[in-house]
Amino acid sequence: MIPMDHPRYKSLATRRRLARHAKKGIVTLEGLTAHGRGEAFDYLIGERTTGSALIAEETAAAFLLAARKPVISVNGNTAALAAREIVDLQRSSGALVEVNLFHRTKKRVSSIEHLLRDAGVDVFSGEAEQLLPLSHDRAWCRREGIFSADVVLVPLEDGDRCEALVRMGKTVIAIDLNPLSRTARTATLTIVDELTRALPNITRACTILSITERDQLLASFDNNYLLQDAIGEMTSRLSHALD
Amino acid sequence: MIPMDHPRYKSLATRRRLARHAKKGIVTLEGLTAHGRGEAFDYLIGERTTGSALIAEETAAAFLLAARKPVISVNGNTAALAAREIVDLQRSSGALVEVNLFHRTKKRVSSIEHLLRDAGVDVFSGEAEQLLPLSHDRAWCRREGIFSADVVLVPLEDGDRCEALVRMGKTVIAIDLNPLSRTARTATLTIVDELTRALPNITRACTILSITERDQLLASFDNNYLLQDAIGEMTSRLSHALD
Repeated sequence: MIPMDHPRYKSLATRRRLARHAKKGIVTLEGLTAHGRGEAFDYLIGERTTGSALIAEETAAAFLLAARKPVISVNGNTAALAAREIVDLQRSSGALVEVNLFHRTKKRVSSIEHLLRDAGVDVFSGEAEQLLPLSHDRAWCRREGIFSADVVLVPLEDGDRCEALVRMGKTVIAIDLNPLSRTARTATLTIVDELTRALPNITRACTILSITERDQLLASFDNNYLLQDAIGEMTSRLSHALD
Repeated sequence: MIPMDHPRYKSLATRRRLARHAKKGIVTLEGLTAHGRGEAFDYLIGERTTGSALIAEETAAAFLLAARKPVISVNGNTAALAAREIVDLQRSSGALVEVNLFHRTKKRVSSIEHLLRDAGVDVFSGEAEQLLPLSHDRAWCRREGIFSADVVLVPLEDGDRCEALVRMGKTVIAIDLNPLSRTARTATLTIVDELTRALPNITRACTILSITERDQLLASFDNNYLLQDAIGEMTSRLSHALD
């Protein structure tokens, strides 16, 4: 047991949770390494939602609300860390939730779908086909899900897939703590924030944004500014770290 | 198989290697996350040995050569990634090599010692006792090894243990990609570089440093400057990343 008053309680509990899901095959060993990379960048933005990240989260809500067919793409790390937050976001945004994996096996897809359903998510499933312009395993998705979506929220996505979705003309919203990653730079909108902080903020914005506010957010958003601001936060924390 | 011409070949091959050793119990699931954190910081220093890191590596060689009893403390990640580099460093520095684990079980200690011996390391073993001023599992080391060493090289060490060794009056040389970590800030000398780049540089310096050069390095070294320079490299790369 990790004592609740440990200064790194949340971070240690999260790692413990991922390790437990890795043993069950929900999270891959590569997923654990990816989480560690995220932790380093989260540390650099101060493990909090920055002002620009909050704007990105509100803009994400605006995109989801204005979409014809919004889809939330869920992978192993996302399911392990945020199944409950996905339930709430699905309710407030009306988005489909589809499981999409980088390291894909039928067994992993089905155990992740199971985990999400247990948490209360209405999971969109059915036969997957190789529909994305990518080789092999990574091309899979459902015709009536991600393939026909106009807006896709991809927490923790891989760069190639993010690029493929953008090239298909979709609005891609990424949640990625590394503002320099290919995903962060390719997505239409990038939220540089930790998953379990970002999702509830998007959910809240979905429930309170007026149509006017929604349209203003969509008209004024500038992803390059959002990325630059995240980088600015990191350089400023790094520079003062030894003060 | 990862194609040799993949832009991220080395990084992907390293992750694959750690995952393979995780399946054998050499590397822990926490070790995979820690590696991911290191990757993020390595990315920020440009995945190369900086000028100040090379000075730190030469200074590490000077400390090892001048030591009465130098010891290299090896954990699971280090054994998985750099057993051969440890062989060479042991030969050029004459240091003892002792296995010391954060997540310690007799079985893990013995499989890591086995892996190192297979690679050609002369591993110092024998009965461990609870000798470090730390609670429980983390206090273990050998009386004739780390406990009586004057200089200890700890690649990838945990902050508490680093601090305990420094408080015992030892010269502690850490290899840590995060210049802000407690280990990096507590160690006598901190090498902000990736393990498999750092170790061969220390080995080379051990074979070529004259006694005069050695004494000059020891007289002039300034760990605060080394950390500040590493941070400077990171902030400068971050600031120009989107140019």
